[in-house]
Amino acid sequence: MSLIVQKYGGSSVADATSVKRVARRIVDTKKSGDEVVVVVSAMGDTTDELLDLANEVSPLPPGRELDMLLTAGERISMAVLAMAIHDLGAEARSYTGSQAGLITDSAHGAARIIDVSPGRISEALAEGAIPIVAGFQGVAQDSKDITTLGRGGSDTTAVALAAALNADVCEIYTDVDGVFSTDPRVVPAARRVPFITYEEMMELAAVGAKVLHLRCVEYARRFDLPIHVRSSFSSKEGTWVMSPEAITRAIEEGRAMEQPIISGVAADVNDAKVTVVGVPDKPGQASAIFRALADAGINIDMIVQNVSAAATGRTDVTFTCPEGSVQQAMEAINARREAIEFESLTVDEHIAKVSLIGAGMRSHPGVSADFFQALAETGINVEMISTSEIRISVVTRVDDSTKAVQALHSAFGLDADGEAVVYAGSGR
Amino acid sequence: MSLIVQKYGGSSVADATSVKRVARRIVDTKKSGDEVVVVVSAMGDTTDELLDLANEVSPLPPGRELDMLLTAGERISMAVLAMAIHDLGAEARSYTGSQAGLITDSAHGAARIIDVSPGRISEALAEGAIPIVAGFQGVAQDSKDITTLGRGGSDTTAVALAAALNADVCEIYTDVDGVFSTDPRVVPAARRVPFITYEEMMELAAVGAKVLHLRCVEYARRFDLPIHVRSSFSSKEGTWVMSPEAITRAIEEGRAMEQPIISGVAADVNDAKVTVVGVPDKPGQASAIFRALADAGINIDMIVQNVSAAATGRTDVTFTCPEGSVQQAMEAINARREAIEFESLTVDEHIAKVSLIGAGMRSHPGVSADFFQALAETGINVEMISTSEIRISVVTRVDDSTKAVQALHSAFGLDADGEAVVYAGSGR
Repeated sequence: MSLIVQKYGGSSVADATSVKRVARRIVDTKKSGDEVVVVVSAMGDTTDELLDLANEVSPLPPGRELDMLLTAGERISMAVLAMAIHDLGAEARSYTGSQAGLITDSAHGAARIIDVSPGRISEALAEGAIPIVAGFQGVAQDSKDITTLGRGGSDTTAVALAAALNADVCEIYTDVDGVFSTDPRVVPAARRVPFITYEEMMELAAVGAKVLHLRCVEYARRFDLPIHVRSSFSSKEGTWVMSPEAITRAIEEGRAMEQPIISGVAADVNDAKVTVVGVPDKPGQASAIFRALADAGINIDMIVQNVSAAATGRTDVTFTCPEGSVQQAMEAINARREAIEFESLTVDEHIAKVSLIGAGMRSHPGVSADFFQALAETGINVEMISTSEIRISVVTRVDDSTKAVQALHSAFGLDADGEAVVYAGSGR
Repeated sequence: MSLIVQKYGGSSVADATSVKRVARRIVDTKKSGDEVVVVVSAMGDTTDELLDLANEVSPLPPGRELDMLLTAGERISMAVLAMAIHDLGAEARSYTGSQAGLITDSAHGAARIIDVSPGRISEALAEGAIPIVAGFQGVAQDSKDITTLGRGGSDTTAVALAAALNADVCEIYTDVDGVFSTDPRVVPAARRVPFITYEEMMELAAVGAKVLHLRCVEYARRFDLPIHVRSSFSSKEGTWVMSPEAITRAIEEGRAMEQPIISGVAADVNDAKVTVVGVPDKPGQASAIFRALADAGINIDMIVQNVSAAATGRTDVTFTCPEGSVQQAMEAINARREAIEFESLTVDEHIAKVSLIGAGMRSHPGVSADFFQALAETGINVEMISTSEIRISVVTRVDDSTKAVQALHSAFGLDADGEAVVYAGSGR
């Protein structure tokens, strides 16, 4: 008997019909002999509708009240799902984040989980009931106020709860069949990736894949908890996100084929490029820029500093950040104009970040060469480069991103009709 | 400085515009120097919409989950109201029933308040914030599950909280100007009643007036807490519900005129008449009937037993109960057919209960005579009679109820254009 935590997203419980279908799946899992704990998001567009209502009464609602409002969404979906399960003859009990023991800090709208004390969930399981837990929400340790976890919060709830309950697997149900080698809308030959490591999945999440949120994968890696991403509309196997050791075991057991060098290609068009022009080329200037950005809470990604022009003793510093942070970034830098001594600021939002991810590139030195050759042959100009041990990312013109993804997907043998024995991995 | 608990019903916060209007009223009260605690119902039709959603997934949802679902309604309205107040520059904090310390038994859907521990509300007041509390809901003492208080629950929350906080008054805001001498749709000359005793208000609530729920008035009487029923759409004085002593003080202070003999007339068309035909006229038979009904949890109202027919030694027992309980009542009695030994059961749903209420009838013996004379002169046949110290009720044909109300309202000088110095009181 396994303990399975199943998480259903908003699209899986969009209306009464979907709720009943999900209820049937949950009851079937229970009947097959496993213990089940369910984490559920708000139904369909509920969260957006609640946000609209908030905006009707206040342009800038306080975070505490916004969290109180938004948590009504999961309250509705979890109660309705419990009713649907009850209607199939099984016992289900819904629990708010607070009742399920999701203790967070008090950063409203983006709270971090501090502790999970799922005493009531364990009791419900012991009594043979199916606990239904509200995703995305918790209770602040100090103020006892209701909090929300921010983007990808329900996935994080599911993984944190699975870890605290020592579950065997956390199943994340969504409206696609799993993680793909790249966005199937861009490359129709994209393949589903059967197995991927936490590290690769984190790199993918960081460069724009939307299937799993970075924070949830981090959490799963810390507790070595297998995640199974799959569709709530079919019973097909999806994508297993696991440790390299667990994947090796799966290969030994014949459940997986040999692991590929490259798992996927992703493009992110939501970043912008900011250039701080004419910064004196002396120690401390770059530090002043990035301290200003850090103090303003802005996540920056790639950084490039030009070789200084000998005549002027000045250089340009370029970085990328999410488009939504550009205004704030410019204000933060302008506010320290005297310390940084720059000449001007330029912004370019017409960029894309194209990334290749694969744990295998660690031991295969030719990957970079193949990567740049594929882009060069397609006539794509590379503006910035950044690499990690298992990822190569470049900034290109946004209009080139589709061509770049297609070229790389094909060059690394990821196309489904290709001959290469590689798997793949990228979000949609 | 007074402490005022203000309760706003669903029609007062039906949409963003109404919420803003209510927020303005709350902030004005606070600015005028009083402390304010707000209790709020779900917005407009939210509760009905949630019930519809529940019915889509389950014909008979478990009470625990129905309560979890319905409490999302007040969660939304209280958060939105807090935002609107915040937008006017005052600080508001919303609290669920559980957070506000509303401790109940675990009778889902109709929980009773066991205790109120409003520690967080007092803290918020001490910090200068306006607490916004979800009406209608609490938390079960034993199971820690979320409960709802049933019909009129938000009024009861407001009164219970006001009592626990030792507030000076509980203001119940609604969409009418207060309590009327009878339903203004039936008698256009109906008057607003400025003062009414708890007892009279309870009798009115019991016979079909819908402005205040019986339970909330009972609670207020127990703690001698004045209730002020008024419209959220105007700043007019409404109806004060208080003890006879408080009304006497108001008269002495010149705030009220002398109290009337009769305060109002009400008609309730939602009862049915059930007759148990041919019951042996021997000790214990009536008891067996009413024990069966009590065990089934059915509230019965009027009871009449015919004089027994000497030839058969059998009699008929007739009682009234809410139309919604008729089916259950018949099943309960049929299930004890052998013990009760009756011959048949008949049901009549075409009845109305017409009532006259007034604390003054205690000391005015002529009221009954005038009552029956007014009905007789209008040609209305009386089928059953029941009286309390301050109420006379009769059952008539449902088609006669409007005529009966008009005749009584006029006969006791309640018409607004009449000359009598009486006040009046009946719900709509």
